[in-house]
This record gives sequence, structure tokens and C-alpha cells, in this order.
Amino acid sequence: MKLLEERIQKEGKILPGNIVKVDGFLNHRVDVKLMREMAKEFGRLFDLEGLTAVLTIEASGIALAAICAEEFGVPMVFAKKAKSDNIEGGLYKSQIYSYTYKKEVTLIMSQQWLTSSDKVLIIDDFLANGEALRGLVDIVSQSGAELIGIGVAIEKGFQPGGQKLRDAGYDLHSLAIIDAVNEDGFVFRKQEE
Amino acid sequence: MKLLEERIQKEGKILPGNIVKVDGFLNHRVDVKLMREMAKEFGRLFDLEGLTAVLTIEASGIALAAICAEEFGVPMVFAKKAKSDNIEGGLYKSQIYSYTYKKEVTLIMSQQWLTSSDKVLIIDDFLANGEALRGLVDIVSQSGAELIGIGVAIEKGFQPGGQKLRDAGYDLHSLAIIDAVNEDGFVFRKQEE
Repeated sequence: MKLLEERIQKEGKILPGNIVKVDGFLNHRVDVKLMREMAKEFGRLFDLEGLTAVLTIEASGIALAAICAEEFGVPMVFAKKAKSDNIEGGLYKSQIYSYTYKKEVTLIMSQQWLTSSDKVLIIDDFLANGEALRGLVDIVSQSGAELIGIGVAIEKGFQPGGQKLRDAGYDLHSLAIIDAVNEDGFVFRKQEE
Repeated sequence: MKLLEERIQKEGKILPGNIVKVDGFLNHRVDVKLMREMAKEFGRLFDLEGLTAVLTIEASGIALAAICAEEFGVPMVFAKKAKSDNIEGGLYKSQIYSYTYKKEVTLIMSQQWLTSSDKVLIIDDFLANGEALRGLVDIVSQSGAELIGIGVAIEKGFQPGGQKLRDAGYDLHSLAIIDAVNEDGFVFRKQEE
């Protein structure tokens, strides 16, 4: 998506550890107008016939997912990161490894809000190693819901998450895929418009 | 706000410890259409002339704040809860007590995204003891930005946060104030429409 690539090129930074910093418009200060354009783009990329929910994970995916959900006329549901081992019943749970916090994290979601009659689109702001998305896919699978696809704002193409999800057969669309960073800035993977 | 009060009456539950459970439409599964109606109501309640940003705190305030920000044509910024003591520079920090996690939590926000030239509206989904809002107000004060007011979806009127903020002179509007729960359900404080 041209608009997003231009924004990353203009405002994005690379920090040590290959951290892509886009906190001026995506995950700290959020340009909600840009989120709306991204929601429309996901609407073009996916066949959303029969969609019942947009699913994401707290915290930084929520703004984009909320605007996507409104664009598609369905509710948004977000998985939470368990804050303690004292987890009540009636929950889907999925164990993922957080590279940010360098530890195992348990994703939880109330079984009440995702069932086998649902048809969901997963939305997240970032894809690097793909652990968060693996957890969300696992939760969808536990619920018996139908997964339409996975929409991501920015994929770090030089990390393995995207390839793993595509190899597993998921319909994954990332609006911008950063393949490398060189002296001219970010290098984006060419994608069909 | 009638629409919100009716929704709480219909779907809300009270759990032990006075926890108001509204996770079917506000803070786990999110009814984004309702969020849009709430954003419009905030637009009627506040004078938003010159507004430059909507400010909230991760995680469950983000969906409502994002839709408010889009409604008002400004970016949304959210304060984060520090995940470690290893906090980089260039940040506003505010120490609050989390009743949910029963410990001190440090709110952080990049100084880059809120400055003395900003005019902000704080939005959050819940107000009980008011610690999260106290932290956000503190961050606005550190930045030198002008605070227009504080908009909350649901206030627990039987806990002290709302009163403290009103006594301190802040322009606080809660769309539904739960004063008590009895055998007939939730009792809402009468407010001007």
C-alpha cells in the first residue's frame, strides 16, 4: 500500500535489534485517518462475505482492528495477555513467546465471544516472528470459528513469521513488507496493487 | 447516555469485588457502532475547538479513543504501562496504583507526541478509583499541553475517582454513572441529557 510505504519511508526509524520504530503514526500516536485507509484496503484484499468479527491482540493492534471492524460492520474482539497464573475458566488460552519481553506469555480470550458460528478476520499492526499471530490462529482454531484471513499493517520480511504463515496456507496480506534497510532507507517487497 | 445505560442494564454483570463486567460490548468484545455513538455524544458534551489529540491509556481505552479521535479529526495517543524498570529517556512518567493488579504501575509516554502546543481530551472506558486518569492528567500537566476535559464511558459512582476529579475542577463527563446495584439491576445517576 503506497500510502503506508511512503509514511514508513518518511517517518520510520530502525533501532538496534531490527526494531522498526513507527510510533508517530501506528503504535503510540495513531493516525486514525491512515487506519481508515488501511481498513478500506483490507476490504479490497479479502472476501469478507459473512464476516462476524475482527480479532486482534492487545494493545497496539486495537486501534487498527477497531476501525477495520467498524468499516466492515462487525464487532471487534481482542485477546488479552494474562497478567497472572490465576486464570478463570471459560477461556481459550494459547502460549506464545514474546520477543519484546523475552518470556512466555499466555493469550486468553473468553469462550463466550468466539464460537464455531463465527467467521473472523485477524488484524494486527506488526508481523515479525509471528508468535502473536500464531497464538490468535490457535485461539480461532480452538473456537471452531472459520478464519477468513490475516491482515497486517507492517511485516518485517527479513524475519520468519510471514513466510511461516504463508507456508501453512493462511491468506495473509501485509500492507507493507520491509525486506531490508539500506543507506537509502527502507526497501519494500513489490506486491500487486 | 440512554443507549449506554440500556446496554449496561441488559448485558452488564456485577462480579465479587464490585467489578462491573461489560466485556460483551466495551472491553473484550467491542461494539464499535456503540463506540461511534459515544464519540458523537462526547462531541456534544465538550467544546473541542482547537483540539489536537485524544489521549488514553492502553489497553481497553484504545478502541473508544481511536473512534473518538477519528470523529474529531485528530490523532489518538496512548500512554503505555512500563513493562520493566529499564525505561529509556525522553519520556513523561507517572506512577499510579493499579487496583486490578494490586501494585504500582508506571505510565510512560514519549515526550515527542505531546507538547505545550497541544490541546487534548482524555478518553477512557472506565472510572472507579481514578488512578489511571490521575496518571494521564499528570502526563498532560508535565507536557504543558492544555487539557480540555475528561470523557469516560462508565463511571462507578460508588467509588471515589469521579468525585476527586470533579472536586479538582476538571471538566469530567461520564456517559453512564452507576451509583448502586440492587435487585432490579443497575441504578444510574440522573444526568442532564
